[in-house]
Amino acid sequence: MKATIINIGDELLIGQITNTNATWMAQKLNQHGIAVDKVIAVADKKEAIVSTLEESFKNSKIIILTGGLGPTKDDITKDTLAEYFDMEMEFHQESFDNIKQLFAQFGKTTDKRYKVQAEMPVGAKILINKTGTASGMWFDYEDKIIISIPGVPREVKYLMKYSILPQLKLELETPTIIHRTINITGKGETHLAELLKDFENKLPSNIKLAYLPNPLIGMVRLRLSATGNDAIVLETQLDHHVRKLIPILGTMIYGEGKESLESVIGKLLIHKGFNLGTAESCTGGNVAHKITSVSGSSAYYDSSIIAYSNNAKINLLDVKPKTLSEHGAISEETAIEMARGTQKLLNVNCSIAVTGIAGPTGGSPEKPVGTIWVAVTKNEEIITRKLKLGKERLQNIEQTTTIALNLLRRFLLDDL
Amino acid sequence: MKATIINIGDELLIGQITNTNATWMAQKLNQHGIAVDKVIAVADKKEAIVSTLEESFKNSKIIILTGGLGPTKDDITKDTLAEYFDMEMEFHQESFDNIKQLFAQFGKTTDKRYKVQAEMPVGAKILINKTGTASGMWFDYEDKIIISIPGVPREVKYLMKYSILPQLKLELETPTIIHRTINITGKGETHLAELLKDFENKLPSNIKLAYLPNPLIGMVRLRLSATGNDAIVLETQLDHHVRKLIPILGTMIYGEGKESLESVIGKLLIHKGFNLGTAESCTGGNVAHKITSVSGSSAYYDSSIIAYSNNAKINLLDVKPKTLSEHGAISEETAIEMARGTQKLLNVNCSIAVTGIAGPTGGSPEKPVGTIWVAVTKNEEIITRKLKLGKERLQNIEQTTTIALNLLRRFLLDDL
Repeated sequence: MKATIINIGDELLIGQITNTNATWMAQKLNQHGIAVDKVIAVADKKEAIVSTLEESFKNSKIIILTGGLGPTKDDITKDTLAEYFDMEMEFHQESFDNIKQLFAQFGKTTDKRYKVQAEMPVGAKILINKTGTASGMWFDYEDKIIISIPGVPREVKYLMKYSILPQLKLELETPTIIHRTINITGKGETHLAELLKDFENKLPSNIKLAYLPNPLIGMVRLRLSATGNDAIVLETQLDHHVRKLIPILGTMIYGEGKESLESVIGKLLIHKGFNLGTAESCTGGNVAHKITSVSGSSAYYDSSIIAYSNNAKINLLDVKPKTLSEHGAISEETAIEMARGTQKLLNVNCSIAVTGIAGPTGGSPEKPVGTIWVAVTKNEEIITRKLKLGKERLQNIEQTTTIALNLLRRFLLDDL
Repeated sequence: MKATIINIGDELLIGQITNTNATWMAQKLNQHGIAVDKVIAVADKKEAIVSTLEESFKNSKIIILTGGLGPTKDDITKDTLAEYFDMEMEFHQESFDNIKQLFAQFGKTTDKRYKVQAEMPVGAKILINKTGTASGMWFDYEDKIIISIPGVPREVKYLMKYSILPQLKLELETPTIIHRTINITGKGETHLAELLKDFENKLPSNIKLAYLPNPLIGMVRLRLSATGNDAIVLETQLDHHVRKLIPILGTMIYGEGKESLESVIGKLLIHKGFNLGTAESCTGGNVAHKITSVSGSSAYYDSSIIAYSNNAKINLLDVKPKTLSEHGAISEETAIEMARGTQKLLNVNCSIAVTGIAGPTGGSPEKPVGTIWVAVTKNEEIITRKLKLGKERLQNIEQTTTIALNLLRRFLLDDL
């Protein structure tokens, strides 16, 4: 069962936007047992659309087109397809009602253009789009299925999720595929693949393991996908294999699915009744930014001191001038005093302190760019880590943030 | 003059990676006067590559293929093309020398696989790749040009910039196109288009204006592209039109090309001999993160207090308990005291203070989500702004950061 994705729009051909629709659609189609044969970006020109469509018939049963369904003159997909399939256009009440409803939400009334937008080809199945004014269209043509939807990412997602994928499953009896994503930090893809060699070899043939690494921030997601007919059987099977990962990976696993490191830390802090403060030098607020990106973080997050200057380290965080002069700002001693100073200053149970050289300049032979000290406290306890990262400023900031947050997580789990 | 981009790789068809190569390549080709007819992602299978190539001959003079040139068994592009063009393979000394040199940089020696990788089709022009072990290939075939390069983004960029685009220019006498990008914040795309209507209508036919908006962070880039034969004439022409933008847009323009708002602020602070501290509540460190993402920012950036709790606002920033109880944490009064407290605490000339409700929860009828106060100080002077943003947490954080930084920039320019 193969599909071709055709993304219509000049903006793709001049490089104004990146084709993220294709990435998302390809993921979802594959996850539903439909392989993607080609992804083709074409101009919003009639001949280009028709010739690409016909070319796609050679290898694909399903062709999904995005784009060119708006209310302007440039939007020619609907007319092109209606003409190609030799269908009349007719006013479609349900589509127009949907448009009116969307406008009503913003206290507006529709204008004339939208009457035209509600004209749909007679004979096509119409896919009502609750997220936008253009309905989708489904054409059954010979043994092919041709689907045309708008190109706005939110609308693509809505129509794929609630209309196209369920209908394809019904009509084509595609297998049921269930996924489980395990979020990991602490080891890279290569190392994980080594650890999981045996696990992977012993997986039943209907379960596939995929590595989704994000090296910039130092995280890897593992995706287990089970294919079969019965969702409940597959869920149980996945449960079983996810459980087998735990003794192998332990607390390298920080969460599942959409759980982020910062949301997991939030839950742990709330559970323990702890609050948190941070003191950052080289990460410049990124640790705080991550923690506060969780809605509700004010329940456990107090404050952060971003102490870029030595003065701020001394005056705010109570780092001793002697410590700075003897060991330097980038040292275990300074990191410890920053972490303790944060606890005292903000009156918090837990603190994270980071000090280092993010680069690309500022290194020395003894302390090259990428030398970073992290200290984490939990009441009286304290742990420290020395990091030796690379030369890329942004990557150093992101990776240090991940490592510092993960250190706190494992500390809270008494796993250090 | 048309081109087709063919990106080879299963990872594109399962949605594992987004095709950013195509975006970048399309931009560059268009900027060099070569329109892109189609972008096609295909599997690394012989038949798929050959049929897509032949299909592309219909509309394009130039076909650029990426991917499938690595040293593993899956990499079949080179053999497929050599067979298609009926060329023998031969050991290519210059390619092998390049591989050896790359390995030597890391103190390593090459292994056997790389002898095979240095075998190239006889009759193709070989494009030496200083950024990777796979050379590119250029085939002249009938009236077509077929170019095959590796798919690693860094290698794509290197080979396009230093090899393919200059050679295409030479062979095809494509026009010279020169671009200038103007970075703007403070107004959205629609408003700018209104302001620039007259300017745009009066542009000579060889100059095009493009809007590149980034609504998440509240910025728009304007790109002026001039097409002609003589680079110096075009530069002068662009200078002239960029100068015409200044009276229309004024200080909405914060920079050109790669200049960021935070790097511009850095230069202004250094120029004035000022230093900066920040106090953030709802932006949770994002203002500090932006400022410190500039290498060398420690020269003018002192510290930041991320005062999430009222306690921190009171104890660290000297906000009066009475101010908090009478006006609330989200108020002009609190923002002012935070900004003044920051100046005092950190002993800095300038400060930025932000307090608000980033959402999605935490709003009230009087102070809905998206209500944010910003205060900026410059020695004794102070300005404040009330923002009424949307409901999206991340967007609120990003837009507030941009607005706060821009406020400081205009304040430093005495433009408020």
